[in-house]
Amino acid sequence: MDFDAMFNAQLDALKEEGNYRIFAELERECGAFPQARSHDADAPDKVTVWCSNDYLGMGQNEVVRQAMKDAIDRCGTGAGGTRNISGTARHHVALEHELADLHGKEAALLFTSGYVSNWAALSTLGARLPDAVILSDALNHASMIEGMRHARCQKVIWKHNDPEDLDRKLAALPANAPKIVAFESVYSMDGDICPMEEIVEVAEKHGAMTYLDEVHAVGLYGPRGGGVSEERGLAHRIDLIEGTLGKAYGCVGGYITGSAALCDFIRSFASGFIFTTALPPAVAAAAQASIRHLKTSDAERRQQRRQVAQLRAKLDARGIPHLDNPSHIIPVMIKDPVKCRQLADILMRDYGIYVQPINYPTVPKGTERLRFTPGPLHTDADIDHLVEALTVLWKQCAIAHAVA
Amino acid sequence: MDFDAMFNAQLDALKEEGNYRIFAELERECGAFPQARSHDADAPDKVTVWCSNDYLGMGQNEVVRQAMKDAIDRCGTGAGGTRNISGTARHHVALEHELADLHGKEAALLFTSGYVSNWAALSTLGARLPDAVILSDALNHASMIEGMRHARCQKVIWKHNDPEDLDRKLAALPANAPKIVAFESVYSMDGDICPMEEIVEVAEKHGAMTYLDEVHAVGLYGPRGGGVSEERGLAHRIDLIEGTLGKAYGCVGGYITGSAALCDFIRSFASGFIFTTALPPAVAAAAQASIRHLKTSDAERRQQRRQVAQLRAKLDARGIPHLDNPSHIIPVMIKDPVKCRQLADILMRDYGIYVQPINYPTVPKGTERLRFTPGPLHTDADIDHLVEALTVLWKQCAIAHAVA
Ligand SMILES: Cc1ncc(COP(=O)(O)O)c(C=O)c1O
Ligand SMILES: Cc1ncc(COP(=O)(O)O)c(C=O)c1O
Repeated sequence: MDFDAMFNAQLDALKEEGNYRIFAELERECGAFPQARSHDADAPDKVTVWCSNDYLGMGQNEVVRQAMKDAIDRCGTGAGGTRNISGTARHHVALEHELADLHGKEAALLFTSGYVSNWAALSTLGARLPDAVILSDALNHASMIEGMRHARCQKVIWKHNDPEDLDRKLAALPANAPKIVAFESVYSMDGDICPMEEIVEVAEKHGAMTYLDEVHAVGLYGPRGGGVSEERGLAHRIDLIEGTLGKAYGCVGGYITGSAALCDFIRSFASGFIFTTALPPAVAAAAQASIRHLKTSDAERRQQRRQVAQLRAKLDARGIPHLDNPSHIIPVMIKDPVKCRQLADILMRDYGIYVQPINYPTVPKGTERLRFTPGPLHTDADIDHLVEALTVLWKQCAIAHAVA
Repeated sequence: MDFDAMFNAQLDALKEEGNYRIFAELERECGAFPQARSHDADAPDKVTVWCSNDYLGMGQNEVVRQAMKDAIDRCGTGAGGTRNISGTARHHVALEHELADLHGKEAALLFTSGYVSNWAALSTLGARLPDAVILSDALNHASMIEGMRHARCQKVIWKHNDPEDLDRKLAALPANAPKIVAFESVYSMDGDICPMEEIVEVAEKHGAMTYLDEVHAVGLYGPRGGGVSEERGLAHRIDLIEGTLGKAYGCVGGYITGSAALCDFIRSFASGFIFTTALPPAVAAAAQASIRHLKTSDAERRQQRRQVAQLRAKLDARGIPHLDNPSHIIPVMIKDPVKCRQLADILMRDYGIYVQPINYPTVPKGTERLRFTPGPLHTDADIDHLVEALTVLWKQCAIAHAVA
């Protein structure tokens, strides 16, 4: 049987639709973020990264790097085992305490990634609570969707960011079924933020557990970086807060926080937690240093907000349409995968601007976009250069017409 | 609804069975492996780790540590994005080439862990190849089981390490269904090794694709550390070889290798690959250094084999029963979760010997064990001390009687 032919047939279909992905090969350089060296033949040697999720540049922060290097010197490069079998280091335990404190919860539990934390936690809750029903916002992230799918419990989709629809759907369920309301604070592709208080109120009214993904908000929102739930004073009313160490904190890994019983339950039953090598202690040390830094330092967040506001205002001044939202994410809709890739290619080749075209399956077909994430390290000149480049391209008819 | 009460009820059941897990909190110390500092109240300050999967101590290897620290200084602590959205570094690409070369394959694909690589690859193959059937060895790892479950394709379990049973089960399937035979080389809890050539022959006869997990073999078997498939000259007859960077290579992460079309297919369609932050470039750099080292250095493997043989011989001399197998893993069966934990507690408290009791769900109930993994850095004195301690404990009736 010719398996390669089967693989190639499906890859060819992707290519025909314009959805085949080519990864940009970069080399980020400490001290130069958001500049990076490009290893792609068609790109200039140095490019400015405009689509990083290392939102605050913490990946190059001196304190974070030093914490990671110190832990390597003391403990080595890996954990050497699963959390249960020789893989729990002092650093993991300390980081879990730090995370519980960040969100004002009793406990926290680390995973190898945010993806695995969502997948493992939701699949375990859905599978092990008898008659559980998960109520999922229509635009929840793939990691939550796969977790719910894996749980094989009843799943109800409610309209994106619509507490009234959630209310109706909760009301239609049996009173005694355990209900879990799963949603995000900042939706990463549109950059919109959920009406958290209304959602929490509806969930409380129906005795439902709340499950909140703050992956694109931790480190960025709230006085200590505790996310939108901290900013709005709602963290104590949310049962489970999930986050990542790989975006604003500049490292890798994921976690959940909540009651001691909840975390112990997931720790004890989640396959995706149990059967895998723990994060390197050095990663845990770096993440803890990053969280600590952003608990007290507001400078990065303030400068980020300034640059986000600037880019928005300058795009508006040039009449370049972008999605209106209250977050740090600026999506410019192109709505065609081929045009989106062409535009990104020109920006890279002619302007040294790297922004990855976002296509299916990350966003629905027909909503392809360029997604800009200005950070505190983008200079005013970087912003002007980007707006200049987009203005030139916008004037070229073919592209202007591609944009609704 | 009182969710905590529901969680606690299930945790109480675990505790009653003796299957509740308590993690040992350690601090490994470079230069002192397999010694580590213990942070547990009941344990001595310094303990010898006897259950690490950092099988060769590569986690403290100077070259590996230096590679990781250098990459942190150059590129920072994290990747800053998914592989598609700004997260691909030169280091990821170089490591993928290194891995393809290690197994003599066209291509390789990195994942955040071995767990995710199995889960994502098997679920994608099973879900996207029309009418696919996965034939799974009865003792395959949880990560493969969850991947197959997620695929929702037809699944057939064949008797552990039994090529004849596999043959019968393949013969019973429709000739034109794509068939995937999934198995491991070294089974980590019993330490047995599969009859690889026979399995490959049966799979070839039926035109089935072979999917081999070499997680507990890479770095350890074969002249370049390419695993049992390299040792036996069979790698070129296996379609997909999966491995980890978190055990013998001393870091964290997982991968698959195979044809270019296969890797591109998984790259393009696997949710668990697409929707997650890439491994830190520094982890990729460290893993590459480790693989390179073990491609040419045989000293670690030779010394490991020596210490494994020594421990086996000394256990035999004292009449302490252990599972007979051809690998580096020495399981001593206790067959009761409470006794297994007691024994481990005494070893830790009175002898400074850390061996985690292995219980359900890692092994079936009633097959609880102590699982020893001697490495090149265990001294002859370490081995004597362990055998001495076990001999004393063995003489105590309660424990002797617990062992069949
Ligand atoms: C909303 C959301 N949740 C979870 C994740 C997964 O987090 P991680 O990158 O740490 O795997 C992502 C993105 O990667 C995300 O966008
Ligand atoms: C056979 C097998 N496959 C896969 C894995 C997962 O690998 P990783 O620890 O890199 O997630 C493990 C153990 O953790 C394993 O024992």
